[in-house]
Amino acid sequence: MGQKRFHAQEAYLYHHEIFASTFMPSLVQLLRIDASAPTLADNTGDADRLRRAVQAACGREVHLPFNRTVPVCRSFRAAGFAGWAAVAHLPAGACIADFLPERPARFCGMALDLGSTHLAAELVDLESGATVAAAGRANGQIRFGADILSRIHHAVRGGGGELQRAVLDDVRFLAGELAAAAAIVPTEIRVLAVAGNTTMTHLLLGLDPGQLCREPYIPQANVVEPFFAAELGLGLHPAAPVWVLPNIGSYFGGDLIAGILATDLWRREEVGMLIDVGTNAEVVVGNRDWLMACAGAAGPALEGGIARMGMRAETGAVERVRFDPATGDFRVATIGDAPARGICGSGMIDLGAALYLAGIIDVRGRLRPGSHPRVVATAAGPAFAVATAEEGAGGRPVLLDQIDLDNMIRSKAAMYSILKTLVHQLGLTFADIDRIYVAGAFGQHIDPRSAIVLGMLPDLPPEIFSPVGNSSLAGARRVISDREAAAIAMELGGRITYLELNVNHEFMNRFSGARFIPHTDPSLFPSVPRVEAGR
Amino acid sequence: MGQKRFHAQEAYLYHHEIFASTFMPSLVQLLRIDASAPTLADNTGDADRLRRAVQAACGREVHLPFNRTVPVCRSFRAAGFAGWAAVAHLPAGACIADFLPERPARFCGMALDLGSTHLAAELVDLESGATVAAAGRANGQIRFGADILSRIHHAVRGGGGELQRAVLDDVRFLAGELAAAAAIVPTEIRVLAVAGNTTMTHLLLGLDPGQLCREPYIPQANVVEPFFAAELGLGLHPAAPVWVLPNIGSYFGGDLIAGILATDLWRREEVGMLIDVGTNAEVVVGNRDWLMACAGAAGPALEGGIARMGMRAETGAVERVRFDPATGDFRVATIGDAPARGICGSGMIDLGAALYLAGIIDVRGRLRPGSHPRVVATAAGPAFAVATAEEGAGGRPVLLDQIDLDNMIRSKAAMYSILKTLVHQLGLTFADIDRIYVAGAFGQHIDPRSAIVLGMLPDLPPEIFSPVGNSSLAGARRVISDREAAAIAMELGGRITYLELNVNHEFMNRFSGARFIPHTDPSLFPSVPRVEAGR
Repeated sequence: MGQKRFHAQEAYLYHHEIFASTFMPSLVQLLRIDASAPTLADNTGDADRLRRAVQAACGREVHLPFNRTVPVCRSFRAAGFAGWAAVAHLPAGACIADFLPERPARFCGMALDLGSTHLAAELVDLESGATVAAAGRANGQIRFGADILSRIHHAVRGGGGELQRAVLDDVRFLAGELAAAAAIVPTEIRVLAVAGNTTMTHLLLGLDPGQLCREPYIPQANVVEPFFAAELGLGLHPAAPVWVLPNIGSYFGGDLIAGILATDLWRREEVGMLIDVGTNAEVVVGNRDWLMACAGAAGPALEGGIARMGMRAETGAVERVRFDPATGDFRVATIGDAPARGICGSGMIDLGAALYLAGIIDVRGRLRPGSHPRVVATAAGPAFAVATAEEGAGGRPVLLDQIDLDNMIRSKAAMYSILKTLVHQLGLTFADIDRIYVAGAFGQHIDPRSAIVLGMLPDLPPEIFSPVGNSSLAGARRVISDREAAAIAMELGGRITYLELNVNHEFMNRFSGARFIPHTDPSLFPSVPRVEAGR
Repeated sequence: MGQKRFHAQEAYLYHHEIFASTFMPSLVQLLRIDASAPTLADNTGDADRLRRAVQAACGREVHLPFNRTVPVCRSFRAAGFAGWAAVAHLPAGACIADFLPERPARFCGMALDLGSTHLAAELVDLESGATVAAAGRANGQIRFGADILSRIHHAVRGGGGELQRAVLDDVRFLAGELAAAAAIVPTEIRVLAVAGNTTMTHLLLGLDPGQLCREPYIPQANVVEPFFAAELGLGLHPAAPVWVLPNIGSYFGGDLIAGILATDLWRREEVGMLIDVGTNAEVVVGNRDWLMACAGAAGPALEGGIARMGMRAETGAVERVRFDPATGDFRVATIGDAPARGICGSGMIDLGAALYLAGIIDVRGRLRPGSHPRVVATAAGPAFAVATAEEGAGGRPVLLDQIDLDNMIRSKAAMYSILKTLVHQLGLTFADIDRIYVAGAFGQHIDPRSAIVLGMLPDLPPEIFSPVGNSSLAGARRVISDREAAAIAMELGGRITYLELNVNHEFMNRFSGARFIPHTDPSLFPSVPRVEAGR
């Protein structure tokens, strides 16, 4: 009954081309420079000589920022006017960040997914695009507030500096870990790309998040122009550009822009859809010509945040559930094959679909007492024993009651309604979508077939659905290693039409119809069998 | 016998258009902004809203640097999204430096002539181009070395930081003086333009001047890209751009580029010549199509630096001398009408010409004993008593001996040879020059007629010669108030052909012929009478 026995990956293809796209010129470039030594006849200044040589080598105008002039010129002269220039391609032009006498063993950048609970980072080789090292760490801001809102309030009450210092410490720690793994020092990290939600980028950069949570929900800045790592005291190379993926609004942050970059949604001919389920569900549909996005509160139940037995995808979480019609029993897989402690998002969706297919819940998601031996009576009413006291960790059962199921139904209804409304507003149907990218742990672990049975995801062939893993991190990595994508990132906001669901009547109407399994209109889900009540 | 009696100004025109050219858009611009307040339907970020409004107001893409994001956005929101944006037009693009709720009473920039002995500064109104206040101060680096070379050596021996701090203190002091005079605070100074020689700009910016004085005489940087005042801790507005006029080489600094800007040499149709006499004589010839420059050691004697009785143009300096053929005596004017203490540059030239016209020195500049009662015998040989012991300050005579005269002849020969070689290399003659701008105190005070009689300046009509005063300061002022000129300044170096005289044989040959008064070839000076020996 190990988790490997029926792994969701068999159900749909893993689209390798998402990660293995052709390597593009990176944001910071290493250029061989062989300048002539000064003579009476060619007596231009060191800075000007270097600028001229680098310009010739990279074919565009280059700047040498004032604060790099002395160290770069000193190194250029000490190296005998020949060596390697590190050139950063910034929105305001190319600029000489460093001069190295020898080709460095490693020429790296750092990609950072700035999650509100967890930070994930990778060290990327700027010449090959390969990932050299990876590291992760819990967000140090958690001690000031587990959720985003309490951190905003802490910042508004004067704790902004404290929150910023906490996350800067995390970034420095991760940079140290990555550097150690690659046998370099952090000051050899030549660029940092950061993807996070709007609040997290505000707190990292010391921006004021006070307006993010009050109408009309205004970020202090959506686009923050790239700057040098020294300005934040990050301990990387002082002239390492820090490229923060821009936000579109309070509820649509740089992590989503990262997803758009990671999936190449913005430059594909066919229409794609990106679904990112976190605290909210955020969805983007589009192609190289247009992009439309929206966000809605569909996430918590699916993330394991609302069900009382819900938990993050950690050891002991039920992550896969199947109903075996032959035995009439359930096969349950937990993470790490450990005794069950709770249910994570993918387990919840599997369980919901299995309960429906087993006739244990009806089309409204109501538990039917007596329909199965695992339906037990509790003080709060009937519940389903995912694990009995004998099966569960520490002798405690894992129970799912009606309230948990109702929450799940609301979440799945919200998700479907978001997708349907968005596609309809575009004058499209689901059949027009060529591929659906599902981000995060949710995308990595859900079985799309279960989500379809529940009526959460549209009834499309399973191979349409592609898990894209940590697309926030992948997008940050893309910025580092593809200077075209980096430039596009800064202007993607202007290309995206944002659909506000809070004031959308179509969404509200659709939500009601979506609160059934799979839907009040079964023709929308032709592949899902109609389960007779009392089967 | 006051200095006003025969002032050189009568001899040539003061070309007002040099200083009163049409006012151009300034480097830092004040723009009225009226942005709409955020709503649910228009919920872009504060930074993005401001960027959009400023872009619309100034008709070009604008940046908001990361380190200005928080203060600028805070002020923008506090002002109700309406007020005044300060926009700096930098080489890398326009950028929002500040946001002010009200139109400031003064919107100013600072122009600085960074002389090795004296700093001169002006506060310029950025909207009218008018000078609001002026201030000056001795260069605080003098205590580490009076001359440039000793300061370079001090820097090389580790005193660079000390020298930089000394001059930064001076700049801060001058900014304070200017601000006080205009009833503002230094942080309201929005831009600083600096013109100085190559060594002085190196020492101000903390660049390494070590290669400036050894072959092949290489500056660490000719073009230093504009940066923000906070980077040098100048105490001006933190985002005030600091625009340092670029150098062309070790011996041709930003002060000369300033002169080219101040005289509009680079954009006039007619051919002009700019002569700046300091420690060296620096000369530029050209027009809007081409510019050629050279520098040579012609200055010291003319600056009062070599003659033993030589002195700067201060009280008691002989600055004007005429021989009166009717009385056979000399009329001598001193600065401040005080008893004579020494001779300044313009006095030396006047005296040389007068001595020649009086027949007291011959064509080789040799004193003729017995030719005049003021020719006296000293232990070192014959000397000319510009002031007798009775006439001189403190009962001391002012004497000019043969060594002083020989030095002057060498200087005048060098000057003429520089000009002649430069013009000849261009395939021109002096008659092709439409105007000769003479910079500095030297230009302000010399009588061109005396310089022509001596054979130092070419025999052209006196109205060709225009004094341009402190062209270094005027050029810095031009940078502030004319953004086209500021941009041109950064690329002027690329337009200038530099003629190296140290290795020029033509110059050496011409120098020999120019060591006579006015010249071995009198046909070059038709207007100068041939004085018979023993007249």
